[in-house]
Amino acid sequence: MTHETETEAVTAANTAFYEAMERGDLETVSALWISDADGPPYSGISCVHPGWPMLFGRGQVLRSYAVIMANTEYIQFFLTDVRVSLAGDVAVVTCTENILSGGPAEDEGELGPLVGQLVVATNVFRRTADGWKLWSHHASPVLTEDEDETPSEGGS
Amino acid sequence: MTHETETEAVTAANTAFYEAMERGDLETVSALWISDADGPPYSGISCVHPGWPMLFGRGQVLRSYAVIMANTEYIQFFLTDVRVSLAGDVAVVTCTENILSGGPAEDEGELGPLVGQLVVATNVFRRTADGWKLWSHHASPVLTEDEDETPSEGGS
Repeated sequence: MTHETETEAVTAANTAFYEAMERGDLETVSALWISDADGPPYSGISCVHPGWPMLFGRGQVLRSYAVIMANTEYIQFFLTDVRVSLAGDVAVVTCTENILSGGPAEDEGELGPLVGQLVVATNVFRRTADGWKLWSHHASPVLTEDEDETPSEGGS
Repeated sequence: MTHETETEAVTAANTAFYEAMERGDLETVSALWISDADGPPYSGISCVHPGWPMLFGRGQVLRSYAVIMANTEYIQFFLTDVRVSLAGDVAVVTCTENILSGGPAEDEGELGPLVGQLVVATNVFRRTADGWKLWSHHASPVLTEDEDETPSEGGS
């Protein structure tokens, strides 16, 4: 595959991951994380949700998605600044997640108040026979204001 | 190299990175980040400091360290839960950074008040002819309390 096609394939895997989250589709999210079934050398996956401690291994990671999905009535990700950095069979995808989400409301059947969140994510993917799979996901809240320390665009 | 030796080499690079931060040694920190000098295929580095937006490329990343070092009189990292996950020429290191730091005090020559911080980090390293180099660093504050959502140890 050309470098461009590779980048497209990785970007598609990254998009598929967020779309599965939006649908609350735990099965697809699970399948997008690398596992023993994807063949050796397999080693542990890791995941950090915004403000959370480190989660390690499929047990902790997939359980966390089940918990998040159970407590999220509605979630939408507007991805910006998506960048793919490739090296052999590994890709690092960085992006800004502009999240709009709502939990269950007090009254049954109602949607809770919508909350906006600015989050940055680093997603590491590995190439497998079954396509690009997540090896690590680290998402964190952006807490700083646009000050001097916020860099301008176009740094090299 | 055996898998064990590889893991030790990656761990040593990870430790060297934090020790250089403690010394305020910008030259060593710069040298630990992968660069064009480390040979193709080189593609962009990315970095997130706790609560910060995404930084991309050597310009933004190294400038951020210069700013942090200029504003930090004292910093110490107590690393716990260090885990190395290897796949070919790439390694993902996860760790908890128990940080104790102090800025410059109001009075010249004095040390500012010490602040403790709980941070989790995902560090991605690539093997180069010059050893393991940082490709991505993502650090974020742990904001959740030890509740139900905090997973127990030993998930698989």
